Amino acid sequence: MKQAAFREGGFDGFLIFRSVNLFYFTGFSGASALLIPKDGESTVYVFSVNYEQVKEEGKAFRVELVNRGENLMEKIARQASVFKIKRLAVDALNVESWRLLSKFLGGEKMLGVDTGFIRELRKVKDANEVKLMRKAGELTSAGMRVAYESVAAGVREYEVAAEIEYAMRKLGSYGTAFETIVASGSCSAFPHGGCSDRRIHEGDLVVVDVGATYKYYHSDMTRTFVAGKPSEKQKKLFEIVKTAQEKAFEAVKPKVKAADVDGFARKIIADAGYGDCFVHSVGHGVGLEVHEPPTLSPDSKDVLAASNVVTVEPGLYLVGYGGARIEDTVLVQKNGAVKLTDGPYTLGEM
Amino acid sequence: MKQAAFREGGFDGFLIFRSVNLFYFTGFSGASALLIPKDGESTVYVFSVNYEQVKEEGKAFRVELVNRGENLMEKIARQASVFKIKRLAVDALNVESWRLLSKFLGGEKMLGVDTGFIRELRKVKDANEVKLMRKAGELTSAGMRVAYESVAAGVREYEVAAEIEYAMRKLGSYGTAFETIVASGSCSAFPHGGCSDRRIHEGDLVVVDVGATYKYYHSDMTRTFVAGKPSEKQKKLFEIVKTAQEKAFEAVKPKVKAADVDGFARKIIADAGYGDCFVHSVGHGVGLEVHEPPTLSPDSKDVLAASNVVTVEPGLYLVGYGGARIEDTVLVQKNGAVKLTDGPYTLGEM
Repeated sequence: MKQAAFREGGFDGFLIFRSVNLFYFTGFSGASALLIPKDGESTVYVFSVNYEQVKEEGKAFRVELVNRGENLMEKIARQASVFKIKRLAVDALNVESWRLLSKFLGGEKMLGVDTGFIRELRKVKDANEVKLMRKAGELTSAGMRVAYESVAAGVREYEVAAEIEYAMRKLGSYGTAFETIVASGSCSAFPHGGCSDRRIHEGDLVVVDVGATYKYYHSDMTRTFVAGKPSEKQKKLFEIVKTAQEKAFEAVKPKVKAADVDGFARKIIADAGYGDCFVHSVGHGVGLEVHEPPTLSPDSKDVLAASNVVTVEPGLYLVGYGGARIEDTVLVQKNGAVKLTDGPYTLGEM
Repeated sequence: MKQAAFREGGFDGFLIFRSVNLFYFTGFSGASALLIPKDGESTVYVFSVNYEQVKEEGKAFRVELVNRGENLMEKIARQASVFKIKRLAVDALNVESWRLLSKFLGGEKMLGVDTGFIRELRKVKDANEVKLMRKAGELTSAGMRVAYESVAAGVREYEVAAEIEYAMRKLGSYGTAFETIVASGSCSAFPHGGCSDRRIHEGDLVVVDVGATYKYYHSDMTRTFVAGKPSEKQKKLFEIVKTAQEKAFEAVKPKVKAADVDGFARKIIADAGYGDCFVHSVGHGVGLEVHEPPTLSPDSKDVLAASNVVTVEPGLYLVGYGGARIEDTVLVQKNGAVKLTDGPYTLGEM
């Protein structure tokens, strides 16, 4: 529990609803809400379906069962009143629940939203988180090695995904960090080009974007292949993206502006004459979510710091032709960055 | 487009934000919002990363690019003003975005939340949705057949999950509808008992809960196994759950109260002396989400109708000992229901 850090921002209590934040603060799944008062014991709220499991896993907390017919917001408001909480921060809430909770608390002035605080906490990974993310990265790299063996003319996109996911799972992955992308041919020109039953054609560009999870921590990695012998144009596009990824990676270190990392990659692609073809940011934070702070985009206000985990993933997309992207998940360290995912930077000719 | 149906509830425009609803109304992924005016052309809002893909897939819509630095809510409000929209319904919105949108629209009175309308629409599957859900059910049943072959003493829980998921994926599944549960031993007593690296022990109860997705439609199925020879107590628990599932399934038909279906299963388990051990609802709707309306719980107000797709899944959980659950995804038809998932109702002795 990082309770001390909560005592900022004019709130004397924090109320967590997002499942990913609930996991972050409790270390288990299945809770529906967590009330952290400035002074006093934190309360976990849980419905009957998960009650016994949370009682066992959540021994460090006061666990309150929400019975059928009881209102969660009413129960929380009652407990907030016991703790004499004057102003409660929530991490996120839809407008309808917000109104209900405000009513039970006695007015909207009792409630505020504070996403920044948790955002700052989660950006900096502790030693245990780094350990889990290293493992997620290893599993992902192992999956990508299978992609190198599987991508070939005649194979369906989802068959490649099946082999990658199976390999990761057999090694102990908890699942996939997102829907695996195996986008071949003209679909590779879409950054989120999906994974269909299309058969890969000889000469296709194939973008493979995959992530394992390990104990709920995510990883994210992309490589680009050609089924067969790459053309000169494909080699040229690939080399531009490869250089952009190298330069952006080299720029990742503490105190560097995230927008500048994006800028290094963007300049290389623009200088090569493809400025309009890099249609996304160069990277994003990774952790319990596959997209989380910090953001490595042109308009990001983030400054990198040690123990951030981010992706570096420039891409180049020619609509109607195909695309290329190279991505690694990297850990920011004192003097630079280290890759948590790794594997050959080639178009597939091993 | 089901635009005509939107003209209810005092709104003259609908604004869709939830990605699952965006897919429901557009048939593609990648949009960030959809504005449907009472009169006029619907507008899809999309960020640059998905712009080219949505332009190709969303030809039936006016597609508006949201550039870096532009505010999505401001763009939407401007378009709503073009359409002279007086009152706009949103499907869901967090309180911060709600305030921002209200400001740009000119006041909170311009905005309302309407979840009921989309809920009612999505509850009733059309012919194409039923076709996709049949396929998802077939893939899931095929995965469960692999579970029958894989569950054995000495095998790790995640290894069973790996085999199931691989089989479904190779047959064309898009992914898993939720994190596969393979919960053995005392973990089987938790309805959401997870899937860890625990090795299954001889004599363990093993609850396997799995779902394939097909073209974004979900399925959900549970079977309970014993690794080795079941004990008399295990057989007895299993038979109670099996009878409860049969009776609840037989009750599923149009015009039946969802709460009554829950009641049939609950009474059988209670009459057998385990009333406190069935700690969840008997079922839920399935579609683009694995949990969606209708709800088959004691306090549900839903009444079943033809073309609903729901689960029937009673369970019995003895903390410290183990649990059993049997679940199928079923389609409500004119005179009853038909199973979309199917497979043996045994403890694993094939």
